[in-house]
Amino acid sequence: MKTHEIVLDGQRLTIKDIIRVARKKDKIIIADHAMDKVVAGRQFIEQQVYSEIPVYGLNRGVGQNKDQHVSPEQYERYNHSLLLSHCISVGPEASEETVRAAILIRLNTLLLGYTGVQPEIVRMYQAFLNAEISPIVYERGSVGAADIGCLASIGLALIGEGEVRYKGVRMAAAEALEKCGLKKIRLGPKDGLAIVSSNALFIAKTVLFIQQVEVFLNLANLIYAMSLEGFDGNVTPLNRSVVDAKKAEGQKKTAAAVRKYLESSYLWDGHKRKNLQDPLSFRGAFSVHGSVRDSLDYLKNQVSIYLNASEDNPAVLVNEKEIISCANYEITTLVLGIEMINLALCHMARIACFRIIKLGNPEFTGLPRFLAPKDKSVLGFATIQKTIAALEAEIQDLCRPVSTNFFPLAGDIEDHATNSVYAVQKSEKIMDNLYYIFGIETMHAAQAIDLRGNILLGKGTKQLYQSMRCRIAFLDQDRNLSIDIEKAYKLLKDNVMSSNNVYF
Amino acid sequence: MKTHEIVLDGQRLTIKDIIRVARKKDKIIIADHAMDKVVAGRQFIEQQVYSEIPVYGLNRGVGQNKDQHVSPEQYERYNHSLLLSHCISVGPEASEETVRAAILIRLNTLLLGYTGVQPEIVRMYQAFLNAEISPIVYERGSVGAADIGCLASIGLALIGEGEVRYKGVRMAAAEALEKCGLKKIRLGPKDGLAIVSSNALFIAKTVLFIQQVEVFLNLANLIYAMSLEGFDGNVTPLNRSVVDAKKAEGQKKTAAAVRKYLESSYLWDGHKRKNLQDPLSFRGAFSVHGSVRDSLDYLKNQVSIYLNASEDNPAVLVNEKEIISCANYEITTLVLGIEMINLALCHMARIACFRIIKLGNPEFTGLPRFLAPKDKSVLGFATIQKTIAALEAEIQDLCRPVSTNFFPLAGDIEDHATNSVYAVQKSEKIMDNLYYIFGIETMHAAQAIDLRGNILLGKGTKQLYQSMRCRIAFLDQDRNLSIDIEKAYKLLKDNVMSSNNVYF
Amino acid sequence: MKTHEIVLDGQRLTIKDIIRVARKKDKIIIADHAMDKVVAGRQFIEQQVYSEIPVYGLNRGVGQNKDQHVSPEQYERYNHSLLLSHCISVGPEASEETVRAAILIRLNTLLLGYTGVQPEIVRMYQAFLNAEISPIVYERGSVGAADIGCLASIGLALIGEGEVRYKGVRMAAAEALEKCGLKKIRLGPKDGLAIVSSNALFIAKTVLFIQQVEVFLNLANLIYAMSLEGFDGNVTPLNRSVVDAKKAEGQKKTAAAVRKYLESSYLWDGHKRKNLQDPLSFRGAFSVHGSVRDSLDYLKNQVSIYLNASEDNPAVLVNEKEIISCANYEITTLVLGIEMINLALCHMARIACFRIIKLGNPEFTGLPRFLAPKDKSVLGFATIQKTIAALEAEIQDLCRPVSTNFFPLAGDIEDHATNSVYAVQKSEKIMDNLYYIFGIETMHAAQAIDLRGNILLGKGTKQLYQSMRCRIAFLDQDRNLSIDIEKAYKLLKDNVMSSNNVYF
Amino acid sequence: MKTHEIVLDGQRLTIKDIIRVARKKDKIIIADHAMDKVVAGRQFIEQQVYSEIPVYGLNRGVGQNKDQHVSPEQYERYNHSLLLSHCISVGPEASEETVRAAILIRLNTLLLGYTGVQPEIVRMYQAFLNAEISPIVYERGSVGAADIGCLASIGLALIGEGEVRYKGVRMAAAEALEKCGLKKIRLGPKDGLAIVSSNALFIAKTVLFIQQVEVFLNLANLIYAMSLEGFDGNVTPLNRSVVDAKKAEGQKKTAAAVRKYLESSYLWDGHKRKNLQDPLSFRGAFSVHGSVRDSLDYLKNQVSIYLNASEDNPAVLVNEKEIISCANYEITTLVLGIEMINLALCHMARIACFRIIKLGNPEFTGLPRFLAPKDKSVLGFATIQKTIAALEAEIQDLCRPVSTNFFPLAGDIEDHATNSVYAVQKSEKIMDNLYYIFGIETMHAAQAIDLRGNILLGKGTKQLYQSMRCRIAFLDQDRNLSIDIEKAYKLLKDNVMSSNNVYF
Repeated sequence: MKTHEIVLDGQRLTIKDIIRVARKKDKIIIADHAMDKVVAGRQFIEQQVYSEIPVYGLNRGVGQNKDQHVSPEQYERYNHSLLLSHCISVGPEASEETVRAAILIRLNTLLLGYTGVQPEIVRMYQAFLNAEISPIVYERGSVGAADIGCLASIGLALIGEGEVRYKGVRMAAAEALEKCGLKKIRLGPKDGLAIVSSNALFIAKTVLFIQQVEVFLNLANLIYAMSLEGFDGNVTPLNRSVVDAKKAEGQKKTAAAVRKYLESSYLWDGHKRKNLQDPLSFRGAFSVHGSVRDSLDYLKNQVSIYLNASEDNPAVLVNEKEIISCANYEITTLVLGIEMINLALCHMARIACFRIIKLGNPEFTGLPRFLAPKDKSVLGFATIQKTIAALEAEIQDLCRPVSTNFFPLAGDIEDHATNSVYAVQKSEKIMDNLYYIFGIETMHAAQAIDLRGNILLGKGTKQLYQSMRCRIAFLDQDRNLSIDIEKAYKLLKDNVMSSNNVYF
Repeated sequence: MKTHEIVLDGQRLTIKDIIRVARKKDKIIIADHAMDKVVAGRQFIEQQVYSEIPVYGLNRGVGQNKDQHVSPEQYERYNHSLLLSHCISVGPEASEETVRAAILIRLNTLLLGYTGVQPEIVRMYQAFLNAEISPIVYERGSVGAADIGCLASIGLALIGEGEVRYKGVRMAAAEALEKCGLKKIRLGPKDGLAIVSSNALFIAKTVLFIQQVEVFLNLANLIYAMSLEGFDGNVTPLNRSVVDAKKAEGQKKTAAAVRKYLESSYLWDGHKRKNLQDPLSFRGAFSVHGSVRDSLDYLKNQVSIYLNASEDNPAVLVNEKEIISCANYEITTLVLGIEMINLALCHMARIACFRIIKLGNPEFTGLPRFLAPKDKSVLGFATIQKTIAALEAEIQDLCRPVSTNFFPLAGDIEDHATNSVYAVQKSEKIMDNLYYIFGIETMHAAQAIDLRGNILLGKGTKQLYQSMRCRIAFLDQDRNLSIDIEKAYKLLKDNVMSSNNVYF
Repeated sequence: MKTHEIVLDGQRLTIKDIIRVARKKDKIIIADHAMDKVVAGRQFIEQQVYSEIPVYGLNRGVGQNKDQHVSPEQYERYNHSLLLSHCISVGPEASEETVRAAILIRLNTLLLGYTGVQPEIVRMYQAFLNAEISPIVYERGSVGAADIGCLASIGLALIGEGEVRYKGVRMAAAEALEKCGLKKIRLGPKDGLAIVSSNALFIAKTVLFIQQVEVFLNLANLIYAMSLEGFDGNVTPLNRSVVDAKKAEGQKKTAAAVRKYLESSYLWDGHKRKNLQDPLSFRGAFSVHGSVRDSLDYLKNQVSIYLNASEDNPAVLVNEKEIISCANYEITTLVLGIEMINLALCHMARIACFRIIKLGNPEFTGLPRFLAPKDKSVLGFATIQKTIAALEAEIQDLCRPVSTNFFPLAGDIEDHATNSVYAVQKSEKIMDNLYYIFGIETMHAAQAIDLRGNILLGKGTKQLYQSMRCRIAFLDQDRNLSIDIEKAYKLLKDNVMSSNNVYF
Repeated sequence: MKTHEIVLDGQRLTIKDIIRVARKKDKIIIADHAMDKVVAGRQFIEQQVYSEIPVYGLNRGVGQNKDQHVSPEQYERYNHSLLLSHCISVGPEASEETVRAAILIRLNTLLLGYTGVQPEIVRMYQAFLNAEISPIVYERGSVGAADIGCLASIGLALIGEGEVRYKGVRMAAAEALEKCGLKKIRLGPKDGLAIVSSNALFIAKTVLFIQQVEVFLNLANLIYAMSLEGFDGNVTPLNRSVVDAKKAEGQKKTAAAVRKYLESSYLWDGHKRKNLQDPLSFRGAFSVHGSVRDSLDYLKNQVSIYLNASEDNPAVLVNEKEIISCANYEITTLVLGIEMINLALCHMARIACFRIIKLGNPEFTGLPRFLAPKDKSVLGFATIQKTIAALEAEIQDLCRPVSTNFFPLAGDIEDHATNSVYAVQKSEKIMDNLYYIFGIETMHAAQAIDLRGNILLGKGTKQLYQSMRCRIAFLDQDRNLSIDIEKAYKLLKDNVMSSNNVYF
């Protein structure tokens, strides 16, 4: 994938763009007409500086301190204090790709002109991305109503304080600025708030998660298809007319994908199958995957709106000549979308476990117990059931929603929150466990296929089978399975992380 | 609302139709072309009766008994046994409107022609609805992969067994059939499965819940608007330009609704407000309500698909001349939609509680503590905070998802489920608590308005204020508040339950 | 069981006493030395009436109104207002036995002399119990830091307001007092607080729940023993030496109980069993029951302390001549005990379900699938698996803790709570579902025993088998199982509710 | 702390011993009479080798393979295969102290003589501990019914396979054995099972967690005492007579501790306090801490039983001359104890947050808002509220039980589990967040004390105050608070981890 340039104007940033900038280091260009809006917003702010009308975060403090006056000569110091006192988050550190995504997302929404930020900050965000300067950001410190406590450290980097990674090397922010010939920002009115009052960290993580789910869902469909082959399962439930009768969108898409992966497979032969009806984990899995699809589509649609919308408080309305306090950073819809998809992934995980267990059961497969080779002394995939059960139990726990648990902060003013960042951190852990579980399913499917002997695989499943067998041999003797599991995990994870191209 | 006739053909049943039939007893007509499909499906089934090809639930048993042969002469007895052995559910009894909705929904999907049911059963479903015969159905016995254990008792009623309500009076099914001049069904091949293999109970409850949320959301917006008046809150966050800057669909709709309710309110006056920024429970509530809206819209769209789609297993494909085992009754997407909206409602509930607490706080309102009248010896709305906290704690608990908790049944064949009915039962309880919490908010808002003296209310809020004051007087002395709360609860609940017309 | 008299003195109230008074209507006598303490406490309060020292709830208000002065001439009116404004709870109504238990518990703790309540109120509580006057109490309105919003209606009854049940008949409190020749209380200083500031409702429900678990645990052991017989399971894991090697208390007790129930059973014969190791739901069930035992013992020990301890705030220390604000109503330990036992019951429920499923599986039992009789056309206990799965899914949900979810009330003063009443309401629902699940297990065990033919049952299990077969016949044809389930449920529930004698 | 020798005999291992061996590398001696039991057990096993009676894991396979015969000549190979096929766990790696504790615990229970293991393995465990050889163990792979999938890698190390840490350096097991002059074990009958069939990993982690809670509870009491000083709170609720009136054990202990820490504090002066009743987070905190104490005492008592009891399946009864299949590895009681204490810790965390918020509120403290110094331009501890809220939201999530979520494995034989390891992993994360939250409380308390000026601190609190101020200066200007938080976190964590001596 080549490096491209992406033009930003606050109106058309896509998930795909973010993945490219975050991971592939694509360069950013800012559209002139967008920059004009930023300039207009700043001019309006500067006009308000001496106004008598109290404006939150401009001539008044923030949070409960909204009753305290801030005079023009205090702006620089006040905004510096604001950034410092907002540096309250704790580890873990956000990954470099997360920070890049966050900067990009905030940069784009600044271009809508509702912030009143100084244009130099906008340019600096652009410079950070293009020069590969990535401030150190800690992830825990947001309650999910703007990530103010996490984003403040990006603000410090703008003024040459704190730490950053420059082309991957950790150093003082001041040093990185110097290396790049960048001049420190001098903070002015409302700049502190412009920097911190955003959900950019949460949305960045959400976008990266969406990409993982998107690619992984393809993989999950493929692995499920391969398990069908190992299982000698019925493919009639995938029949297009049957699926169409149900009309559900997600199911139709996943069934089509599975049919495609199974093109040319022996499963389409009319031989008599062992089971009149397979277990639901085989018979209905594409339907459950379809529900992940439905959830994902909902979340993607919603995120796409938020990527190109103002999250500012107060909002600067240049045309109306007003600066209005609001709650435009509210993101409950997105967090609920995350929580729904977490549940959907849990369904997918649990039935994957049940497929794995079935693959080890001769009653269903006609193959040796636990897919051991014929040699009776080999135990095969017996105890490995505990690994999937333990990982699945974690997913059951991880998918429990957390957004509704909040209490009033900041003098009772901030009495709604969503725990957004934590919600998506849990999503990431779910994904990680999914790589393991589906990795183990792949091990089982491949072993079952080998035990079944000479069968014709589908066009898609054949490729996966071969990738697998390049890394992990047929289990003919008991061996340390932790090693095999780690390889299978890596096979899937690497595939997801590298396959931006699959995604688009 | 007059009684109408609703024409069914399997393609266009709406939530609105279901509410009308379930509650208003609208009559049902079946389109001829739809009935033709049923007949064609049945003819195909009858041709298969002597086929050698094993078909699940036709010439083979159901569940794990799919390996057992059922011969043509056994059909009636077998299907009778099937219904009896599927009568396994326990109380509570489903409401009459739920049962009517369930029959209607199943009737409509039968019309798609994928079931192979005998046409007489279709006609009997129609007759049950039009004659107001409503079998006794118990709600607990479904794991959420078709409500087979709950719907069986509808099947018994068709053959004159078990109990029903006929025009509201409980009696033996046989007696009701006789009163209506209806002839008992004689069960044939696949009829048992046709009756039970459906999610009609879950979907019926879901549709009735959707109607409640739909109407209640309007009420919640109205009550929130009235609280703003009691609070003397800022309305600038509702400003159209500000809301448009955020672009989110749900928020735009709710903000517009609130603005409309507040038309002509004193809140639009430019007087100086106490607070530069109100607490988020006031400032951002319409945004949280907007997330309920977003969740609801998602669920409605999905349900609308399922109302007119096949959920049959096996599916009878007349054109393809096949009967195919499948899992078309999978409904994970809907259940996840339910679970998302439950969470959304919990957000709405919690911030309503925080508004109520704020309304009792002089620091925020400038009014007496706990909205007591000036007389110092009156305690006012002090302890009532415990009621809302207790009810909200229940909602926090009720909104926890349950769909991912399942284990294999039926000889490990049924290894996916969703606990769908339980999920929506929890939704119903959440709604009930919401009537209480928002009823108490209405009490507070009205009290605050009275204490504030002569203020001009909005066009919408004024109506609600007056309805409230017709039932519950200003609290000038301490009195037993349980009585007031019950009245306020009833005011809201009655409004929701009777306002089908508001809905459409 | 005859009616007894129970002597109260604040020091020795037992769970057993409470069950007797609540259910059997035993009479109450108050020890003279205890009454002396009440009198002494009251005298001290009366001396403080004109004191300058502010005392919470005495010469100062309650809750956030602790800054408001209450003068002696206002006491009656103030305490009346206090009761009224604390009447904020909503349904469901507490059962009569719950209300009796609550009155008894509060009466006993009043006798410790830390309250300062007037002796006439103590006598009135006694009179209510002995005359069978039971005020109407609503259960929802407590956050679990004293049930003030629920107990206020008991206070109203004391002064002849509100409603009561008198010997089971609902009537105005004033009417009941008149019928019994009781004089209305005239409220004095601190009386309002004395009445409401107690966890008596929660503790009452907890005690009634403990009794249920205590008796049910015996039943569960018995049913498990009977399932072992139906299953032809191994009894060697119950071997005393093996169990002693583990040393765990609860396990030892339950293993001994099961061995006793199985005395003389054919299971002790040395015939060769099908399975070398039974599933854990059989092999280790007594151990899981033992964990319920351990949890129950912990909870019982803790509750026994609280039954005879002061929960007053403020506490009147007559000897020290002080009235001290405190938080002696904190009951987190008890609520956590409830939440632990709820989890333990869930473990017990889930493995009961797995035993039931195994009993229907020929691979394990050698009996017909789903315990159908030999006649192939009978479906037997196939679909009933859905009932247990649905009920168990509810238990999984019900056992989720709720105590940690609270937020500040009453001007941020009351910033800890436990949701105690809700926690134990969930316990009650768990118990109800357990009656169903173990009722269904009993149906399975009896059916398996019959199918197994002429086997010798244990001394204990034989009795249960016979009770069962008196109510529910062998399933030789499919029939409506909802009816059977209801009978089995009732068999167990009646046994628990009536067997106070078993308990002691 | 000097290195000691600890004598093991299966009867008296204590939590304290384990901490010493795990952390301080104390040496192990095995009592001769205990070793005799091991030898006797082994002799019995060897006699059974040619027996016709099938014995699980001896002459028959394990898990579902219990139907497969294992002949004497296969023992070595079979047990090797068993270990390999049980190596199925995935990261994270257990800490060295965890692995040492696990080996010690298993070693001790081997000494009871119920295992039948070869004495050489017992000696090798001893040698591993004394020579500081610590095999690499992965933590995820246990479902909580013996940690068989995690402990297998210890078995591999015994035979010179896999990896270990030797005096902290990672190397091949074979290399470490050679360095220490240890001879590889040659596996014999039942040895594989003896190695893996244990909950040693879970119990090890539990013991280490108990030690953390034990020490931390003291710290929490101390920090709470210091917050009382910063808050100028009422100490009367700590009054011994008041506390005694409640009678609860845990509360009495914590109140006594707090009183001791506050000895000589200005709080005991009779000056008039701002508040008649402090918020419950101050007034009742020792009671909530007391509930942690109660939970901890329950867990400690239970664990102490399990440390010296057999967890073997099958159990070798030398006296009875039998080898009996059982489920003595069931540990539900312990896991439920863990889950209860997790909830208790969550209560403690939440009220700590509420104290922190109160300390920033001038209405309660009379000090500047957010404890900012007088200089108006300093923001102080405003945004840091988000850190505690975010961390507390995690704890609310982490404390949700996971033990009841399991499904059948191993051919439906293993149908009970507890997710024990995951439960205690969550405990560890809760502890970690508690260090942060109480660290931040310490920052607040110290700041409030400084702002309050010249006040006399208690004997205990003074020490903590000084430790704090050695590391973190008074906040006179806004600065990057993430740095301060990390220091405060470390102060507490180091204290807990190093203070084994405090513990005992």
